[in-house]
Amino acid sequence: MTAQPIFEIAEDAGIDTSELLPYGRFVAKVPLESEPGDAPLVMVTAINPTPLGEGKTTTAIGLTQGLAEIGRRPILTLRQPSLGPTFGIKGGAAGAGKSQVLPTEIQNLHLTGDFHAVAAAHNLLAAMIDNHLHHGNELDIDPQSILWPRVLDVNDRVLRDIVVGLGGRPDGVPRQTSFDITAASEVMAVLALASGYDDLRARLGRIVVGSNRSGDPITADHLHAGGAMAVLMRDALMPNLMQTSAGNPVLIHAGPFGNIATGNSSVVADVAASRLGDIVVTESGFGADLGAERMVNVKSRQSGYAPSAAVVVATVRALKAHTGRYRIVPGRELPDELLAENPDAVREGCANLGHHLRTLRQWGVPVVVAINAFPEDHESEHRAIAEYAAEAGVACEISTHVVDGGPGAALLARAVVAAVEGNDTPGVVHRDYAADQPLTEKMEHVARNVYGAEGIDFTPAARQALERYTELGYGDLPVVIAKTHLSIPHDRAIDPEQPWRLPVREVRLAAGAGYVYALSGAISTMPGLSKHPRAERIDLVDGEIVGL
Amino acid sequence: MTAQPIFEIAEDAGIDTSELLPYGRFVAKVPLESEPGDAPLVMVTAINPTPLGEGKTTTAIGLTQGLAEIGRRPILTLRQPSLGPTFGIKGGAAGAGKSQVLPTEIQNLHLTGDFHAVAAAHNLLAAMIDNHLHHGNELDIDPQSILWPRVLDVNDRVLRDIVVGLGGRPDGVPRQTSFDITAASEVMAVLALASGYDDLRARLGRIVVGSNRSGDPITADHLHAGGAMAVLMRDALMPNLMQTSAGNPVLIHAGPFGNIATGNSSVVADVAASRLGDIVVTESGFGADLGAERMVNVKSRQSGYAPSAAVVVATVRALKAHTGRYRIVPGRELPDELLAENPDAVREGCANLGHHLRTLRQWGVPVVVAINAFPEDHESEHRAIAEYAAEAGVACEISTHVVDGGPGAALLARAVVAAVEGNDTPGVVHRDYAADQPLTEKMEHVARNVYGAEGIDFTPAARQALERYTELGYGDLPVVIAKTHLSIPHDRAIDPEQPWRLPVREVRLAAGAGYVYALSGAISTMPGLSKHPRAERIDLVDGEIVGL
Repeated sequence: MTAQPIFEIAEDAGIDTSELLPYGRFVAKVPLESEPGDAPLVMVTAINPTPLGEGKTTTAIGLTQGLAEIGRRPILTLRQPSLGPTFGIKGGAAGAGKSQVLPTEIQNLHLTGDFHAVAAAHNLLAAMIDNHLHHGNELDIDPQSILWPRVLDVNDRVLRDIVVGLGGRPDGVPRQTSFDITAASEVMAVLALASGYDDLRARLGRIVVGSNRSGDPITADHLHAGGAMAVLMRDALMPNLMQTSAGNPVLIHAGPFGNIATGNSSVVADVAASRLGDIVVTESGFGADLGAERMVNVKSRQSGYAPSAAVVVATVRALKAHTGRYRIVPGRELPDELLAENPDAVREGCANLGHHLRTLRQWGVPVVVAINAFPEDHESEHRAIAEYAAEAGVACEISTHVVDGGPGAALLARAVVAAVEGNDTPGVVHRDYAADQPLTEKMEHVARNVYGAEGIDFTPAARQALERYTELGYGDLPVVIAKTHLSIPHDRAIDPEQPWRLPVREVRLAAGAGYVYALSGAISTMPGLSKHPRAERIDLVDGEIVGL
Repeated sequence: MTAQPIFEIAEDAGIDTSELLPYGRFVAKVPLESEPGDAPLVMVTAINPTPLGEGKTTTAIGLTQGLAEIGRRPILTLRQPSLGPTFGIKGGAAGAGKSQVLPTEIQNLHLTGDFHAVAAAHNLLAAMIDNHLHHGNELDIDPQSILWPRVLDVNDRVLRDIVVGLGGRPDGVPRQTSFDITAASEVMAVLALASGYDDLRARLGRIVVGSNRSGDPITADHLHAGGAMAVLMRDALMPNLMQTSAGNPVLIHAGPFGNIATGNSSVVADVAASRLGDIVVTESGFGADLGAERMVNVKSRQSGYAPSAAVVVATVRALKAHTGRYRIVPGRELPDELLAENPDAVREGCANLGHHLRTLRQWGVPVVVAINAFPEDHESEHRAIAEYAAEAGVACEISTHVVDGGPGAALLARAVVAAVEGNDTPGVVHRDYAADQPLTEKMEHVARNVYGAEGIDFTPAARQALERYTELGYGDLPVVIAKTHLSIPHDRAIDPEQPWRLPVREVRLAAGAGYVYALSGAISTMPGLSKHPRAERIDLVDGEIVGL
């Protein structure tokens, strides 16, 4: 597959090219729009995935191609992949087979440098914090309170826990700190949630980096850093137009973490897309308990642009995995037993699918189940899923977009259009909480409604921090709960069918991004490399990229 | 001044636009050329500068505009400014007044992301080194031998001396290390010296990061990192076309440090420029003892493209400073006394100018002195310089390009064209040493011929390291001597008119970039921020950048 010049793609899709900013032949930045248009939004989410992922990105791409196949003028919004994992275990995240974003090597490398801009803005603030400590600490910042790491877009485990400022007086004040991967930066979440330049500037200035010795929050604007950060981020705020394998427009923008952040592409990308096509497809990260929940409760609250339908991607392998009968280790291949024909295991695993279907129904979002077909699947196993969906009263289609491209997703596309057209209240979702409820209650609502927990248990420190945030005026922010994506409960060992409670050991404030997040279980924000990372097999030969 | 669309600039300059890759409206990447064309190269260098700089960049821009003014088809090559200092003390480096690179905010910010690509490639290698230690250290790397820092393009003093890998076994092997600013990365020097994609790939693979416990060098290719690094650097190898205030083409590319690296724009930028215009202007960093010396002995050896004439920029304030009568402190304004009319002091300071004129003459490069006029200068002071130049038999012109743009540099441009036309052996320079001389001799030649030292003193460790490099096959590399740019000797307290010797305390190998460098005096490779850095005054207001 060869990419077409991006201006041709745009013209074919009926997009006004006069305002596009080219970045090479195959990418263009699109201007910001202030209000969403009329195109309905279709959110592609999934059951809880295996560590390998269930092809949600390929399905979103395939669906977009399928919608074009049946005569619609679709546009897709996706997150930008992180460089670190591209050179680590995972490899690129540009789709597969006949459902890719092209050119893959642009999407998987620097793209237009937005991630680098996030890192530059983030690290400038970090330098200005330590510079303030060095030059006398007029704001009386408590060094122990500083929760602003540095970031780099590389899997580098030795940066998880470091001591800086050694060497002597001219080299600053020593303290223990860390590096996160760029996708985990609050600046990335700001990029994903800002509605325009002024909002970007304001959010960056509101970032809280720690507190003074009286416990008052210290913001980026106290350090006079918000303006320079916004300048570094200005061009990054424009979404990046690329293309699917079939030449349909795709906006690639922002890449906030799926656990501690919103796990969705940006507000500005969705809003721009709503004016560039007649139907917008977007992918929400991980399962419906994570990315879709943040779309409903956080992102769409900000964008004013909520889904009119959802696709839940299910795979035979992941449903089997949810029976708990197989030993699945992140970073390893799936076990062979899991690949043997076993419709009963699939049926049993459908409990996970059923859970998410109920959640989406609660939100008032019509659903289509997409079976992302793999070559090793068996027909009986697909049938088991289809029967389960039929019993649940939900449309279900097999999609073969990886092998067949758009035509392989045409049935799915028709079902999605039917779901959108059958929605009497398009773009309206029933959120799990109101902004003015107490933070503890908001978290409890997510734990109960979305995860099906019996309740939520805060450590005393977490409860105290939430009270403090409320006193400080952050009580109206939405919430994000960071937990594993591999199961609905925070711990894969817990049976979600039995009563269980969600523990919150720590809470943190993302005042710039505009949410409070809870840590439920250990969340790594800096991956490591495996013994033989993919980087070892990537090369430049005669100026051409191989092995990416 | 408003920038014109870059494709219009290119067309006006007679550049074939079909091969240009646009990056926004005002920047385009130009394709690589394998051989230099016929356009003569004019190197803009200077006397030893004050900490404020003597307007070498503005003069190079002004001269380019002046050459267009007198009917030539000039093109300029410049280094890309570093982000760190832009937000630190120095501010942007895009010229001044009517001699700027436009749009300044693009040049001073991310441009096309080349610096970020350098950092990504550099830090991937760093992560792969520590990953190798973590996963059993099969290559038996001696952790104490590792001389590969990490890099970030931010002034962040607390990263000068750090300990990484704390936290426990899963978080890697603890060791002491550091961050440099991105401009100091050897990958940046590779970018500046590579002749094409294959050479880029080979140089990155040859980078030596340390040694095993038997003392054998460990390279990026031993770690299988060279290919992935080259992939990250691929697009960065294309120079970036921008424009002067007068709409003349400028290639902005690479930004290697002026002390430990080559301090010049890239080989590929010069070579591409030689085919895009009828005369090429390039700026060499710092004084003629640093940037011009590397152009003659290192860069042009690689590019096969040497200067046919040079401009030495002199200012009244810097010549006065070289009398040693004024107290000049880096980071502070120049003292008021220095601004009072004093042609005698200027005359006395001309010794510094005279030194560099003799060096350029030794190299066989015809010279024009450019007096970069400042508003606070006095006519008598300009006259003192002109008289000194006349006595030395060198052309000299006052240039008012900052105030007047191209017309203010037209006389300078005519003098430069005359110098080029008067050169019987254009593009031929007499280098200070041959490749096959011993490394110690090469360094001694630079110390004697270029600095005027009586000789060079190596510490035993430095001498031993040079012997080891020679045994390992690196003896044919050119050399770079890192010393202060503020005076000819390594120490500003030394009177260069009296006999003095150059001490070399340490030598290092840049096997990828392809030179051996000596440290003579303390060289900081990670700047810090001042108490109130410029970043504090930079802001984004209604989407527009202010204060940059």
